[in-house]
Amino acid sequence: MPFEKLLAHRTRHMSRSAIREILKVASQPGMISLAGGVPTPASFPLDLIGDLSGLVIQKYADRAFQYDLTEGFMPLRQALAAHLSGRDIHVPGETILITSGSQGVLDAAGKILISPGDTVGVESPTYLGALQAFSPYEPHYTPIPCDKEGVIPEALAPLLAKGRMKFIYLVPTFQNPSGRTLPLARRRAIAALIERYDTLLIEDDPYCDLRYEGHALPPIKSLAPDHVVYVSTLSKVFAPGLRIGYCVAPEPIRNWLVLVKQGVDLHTSTFNQALATEYLEGGHLQRHLPRLLDLYRPKQQAMLEALRRHLPAGFEWSRPEGGMFVWVEGPEGTNMADIYQAAVRRQVAFVPGHFFFPQSGEGLNTMRLNFTMPGTVEIDHAIHILGDILRDHRDRSIRVRGKRRAGECVPC
Amino acid sequence: MPFEKLLAHRTRHMSRSAIREILKVASQPGMISLAGGVPTPASFPLDLIGDLSGLVIQKYADRAFQYDLTEGFMPLRQALAAHLSGRDIHVPGETILITSGSQGVLDAAGKILISPGDTVGVESPTYLGALQAFSPYEPHYTPIPCDKEGVIPEALAPLLAKGRMKFIYLVPTFQNPSGRTLPLARRRAIAALIERYDTLLIEDDPYCDLRYEGHALPPIKSLAPDHVVYVSTLSKVFAPGLRIGYCVAPEPIRNWLVLVKQGVDLHTSTFNQALATEYLEGGHLQRHLPRLLDLYRPKQQAMLEALRRHLPAGFEWSRPEGGMFVWVEGPEGTNMADIYQAAVRRQVAFVPGHFFFPQSGEGLNTMRLNFTMPGTVEIDHAIHILGDILRDHRDRSIRVRGKRRAGECVPC
Repeated sequence: MPFEKLLAHRTRHMSRSAIREILKVASQPGMISLAGGVPTPASFPLDLIGDLSGLVIQKYADRAFQYDLTEGFMPLRQALAAHLSGRDIHVPGETILITSGSQGVLDAAGKILISPGDTVGVESPTYLGALQAFSPYEPHYTPIPCDKEGVIPEALAPLLAKGRMKFIYLVPTFQNPSGRTLPLARRRAIAALIERYDTLLIEDDPYCDLRYEGHALPPIKSLAPDHVVYVSTLSKVFAPGLRIGYCVAPEPIRNWLVLVKQGVDLHTSTFNQALATEYLEGGHLQRHLPRLLDLYRPKQQAMLEALRRHLPAGFEWSRPEGGMFVWVEGPEGTNMADIYQAAVRRQVAFVPGHFFFPQSGEGLNTMRLNFTMPGTVEIDHAIHILGDILRDHRDRSIRVRGKRRAGECVPC
Repeated sequence: MPFEKLLAHRTRHMSRSAIREILKVASQPGMISLAGGVPTPASFPLDLIGDLSGLVIQKYADRAFQYDLTEGFMPLRQALAAHLSGRDIHVPGETILITSGSQGVLDAAGKILISPGDTVGVESPTYLGALQAFSPYEPHYTPIPCDKEGVIPEALAPLLAKGRMKFIYLVPTFQNPSGRTLPLARRRAIAALIERYDTLLIEDDPYCDLRYEGHALPPIKSLAPDHVVYVSTLSKVFAPGLRIGYCVAPEPIRNWLVLVKQGVDLHTSTFNQALATEYLEGGHLQRHLPRLLDLYRPKQQAMLEALRRHLPAGFEWSRPEGGMFVWVEGPEGTNMADIYQAAVRRQVAFVPGHFFFPQSGEGLNTMRLNFTMPGTVEIDHAIHILGDILRDHRDRSIRVRGKRRAGECVPC
């Protein structure tokens, strides 16, 4: 039957994610993948999860396997309230909403807030999963000007002053894809701006616990609590396969999020929420986190060191104090989509940066590199190969430009 | 801040589910609940889940806790393919999509198919969760005429002939809320109709394994495979708290469902999918199901017997061969919302049937009774109380009608 004619208007704007295809390529045997945003399997506390499974069955019995509140498993919400107080977010457990990954909050927020044509302010580049969550609701994206420290408050102010944005979406700490972290002064400035212009901020904070050096910064939620939907997850510090995200939202927004979540999945897995409860309440996160940081810190250092050693002149990269990504910017004219093709032929995968820009044609000279999945030796080897390819590409590009100057017409 | 002005157009049509409030009342201590559609906790194989957790960690290790394909955990899809062949649905595992409960399919289907104002054909009454999944996408519902055997093909034909329906949504077996099952001849007729009029059917089949007597009927999917999105779940035969649903859809539809699901939750819990794999592959469902049926059959019989003994003349009810619900219809003028209030005062909860009708004002004289949660003694006690209240209500209603005939004006 002719299915195309059945599709909703919004569906006609959706397209198969090119990143999905890249991640498929990246998972081929023999490939060194700097592509995914994936924790290393060595980080999963398997024995502990086995013990916790037994404990959960003993402690909660049938309750861990029954239908539960859409809002979330109450013991987990209470455990998260204690956890969040360490981030300067002081709320009772009843106000925390558990979702199926933080992706679940982003979808629900899009659904309750975005009418077709509404404007959403985003960093440029921004987290692709957020665009995938919001785009089915047909927003228009306004890129917020950023520099190497993230959003520039002075550039945000006039955008908010126009009063046309439904909300803004930011990843202030160890951003995906750029790895950038918004300094405290900018957090304060943005908090003041969203209060002044009565603007809602969705603050996505999945990586804050993965800090390898430096000092923690307060989330914007703690600076402007009534104007922020704070979103986080246990995917990076427990196990992503359990799909436990959560959010703290102003009450009216939370009530709508709950209503919408009920229609989407009724509630998040009770068993997995109970496992997460015991992980937090038993002090296991506190004990496991230093091991996780010890696992990732050398990988991050290996990547920064390899970039310094192997990348040709003219390339710059972020030096994040945590998270999972380093962001590389090449000289104007570098086409990372071409580099990607060449890299895959030599068994190295990464994500060309242009995918993360809400407007097409931007970020062609950028790439996102993940350092949590590969080992340190693989990282050095992969960056060495990338360096060779970039150097080769630069040399050929100079030759082409040389010819072009001689009068030939080359399509852009 | 004034959050109301931020809401999307679609959100202004949503309202807090009254059933949620009823289920809260139903869970109060001392209440006998015939309200929820909830498996009895005694049906959960807790010891087995403990064993399977250990097995999953040993067999799949980190893979059970890592990000996974949006389409689902491949071993589960393969196990479900074998399971579905027992329902006359013969498809390779690759074509099965795993979702976070069957609710996840309904939301995704609504998202890819429904533009505001599109028409969706539904039974009247129908499953409320489907309306909650579809309604945010702002459809118009067309009720399909039904009788005690479900949808009437002769009434469906002219509706399909108009060609205005995006899809129809049916629960052909042990329907929620009515408990009705569509006979084989009607399944064949509906299969022929959707093929003739090239109409998409979403066939929701959560209860088919819960058959206490009679013979299994083939799903419509097996009769018109290219025109049906078949939806089912492990919630009723394993544990609802694990949130494992699945669907088999024509390929173009499946591709869109996957794309949409990626934006909603990336994928369903890998650990729970691995548990479900071992539950199916180890033959545990086959061994557990007879026990489940032995648990529910006496409850269903107790309810039918209690209705026969305690309900006053003029009331009729369905006699399903399986599932979780019995549907009661009172004489014209019975207001089950009033009965509900009186029942709750006497510690008995049920769901007034009008909630399940897509158009308001219908089904005021109906109620849905669940028999899987309470014990047989509780069932008899609760129906006894309901019988008393209904008899009392009928007597008062006759007195009022008597007075009314004498000339007094009573508002309707």
